[in-house]
Amino acid sequence: MRSKLFTAGLALAVGAGYAGIASAQVKPETLVDQRLAAMRLQGKYLYPLVAMAQNRTPYDANTVARNASYLEVLIKMPWDGFDPSTKDVKSRALPEIYAEPAKFKTAQDQMHAEMSKFLATVKTGNEANIKTAVLDLNKVCNSCHDTFRQKPQQ
Amino acid sequence: MRSKLFTAGLALAVGAGYAGIASAQVKPETLVDQRLAAMRLQGKYLYPLVAMAQNRTPYDANTVARNASYLEVLIKMPWDGFDPSTKDVKSRALPEIYAEPAKFKTAQDQMHAEMSKFLATVKTGNEANIKTAVLDLNKVCNSCHDTFRQKPQQ
Repeated sequence: MRSKLFTAGLALAVGAGYAGIASAQVKPETLVDQRLAAMRLQGKYLYPLVAMAQNRTPYDANTVARNASYLEVLIKMPWDGFDPSTKDVKSRALPEIYAEPAKFKTAQDQMHAEMSKFLATVKTGNEANIKTAVLDLNKVCNSCHDTFRQKPQQ
Repeated sequence: MRSKLFTAGLALAVGAGYAGIASAQVKPETLVDQRLAAMRLQGKYLYPLVAMAQNRTPYDANTVARNASYLEVLIKMPWDGFDPSTKDVKSRALPEIYAEPAKFKTAQDQMHAEMSKFLATVKTGNEANIKTAVLDLNKVCNSCHDTFRQKPQQ
């Protein structure tokens, strides 16, 4: 428990420190654009792995290793963009993010914990376990989106 | 020279290999959105360092180290988005990118070489040299934009 807090928690604590700097200097619209950019790139590098995990495309260990190394960094980038100053900027972010910050923080912690598990699994090179870890990671992404992001318009 | 080719060249060669995969599967509009996202995040993490280098904000070694580690990864992300399939998608990318691919590739190589120099300088911890390296890096970004990106409308 202590090690989990250390691994996931430290990154978040550092991130939160920088968030203060960012929010003081950057326009809300820019913060929104930047967090969307981080999410978009997470998609760029996660979706091909999901396709492999679902056996829709051939498994490629090099792509998995590369994309995992990118996702390890990208996962740290969106959070300081969810600054309270952005709450009136048009986006799909739901008001719960700012109304229930502790709940949103818990979702971030889950995301970081799942990412750590995924990265550790990638290091083992075990294809079956990696595929499971990719789908678990994707599930945590989607679960946060289900709670904190507006559904697309029908 | 050989080591420079190895460091900067390897990353590009690997990137180019993946570009083939990406272009075969991803819509041109998505490729454009993804490359813009990568550029936007490069701005997010480079501009605060430029402000420090220009003595407009206080120097902060932790931010420099963190942002450098993010930029090291982000610099690899936009290039496969400049796929020929995107040349008719509306963006500020100029036709020279697709008409003169060797020239565009040289600009990418310069960017990667300058990033390697910057990262090596960051490791020394020498504030004055790091500030110079930040400004040199920013100059290479701008030089490529001057050549390959449409100026903003007046």
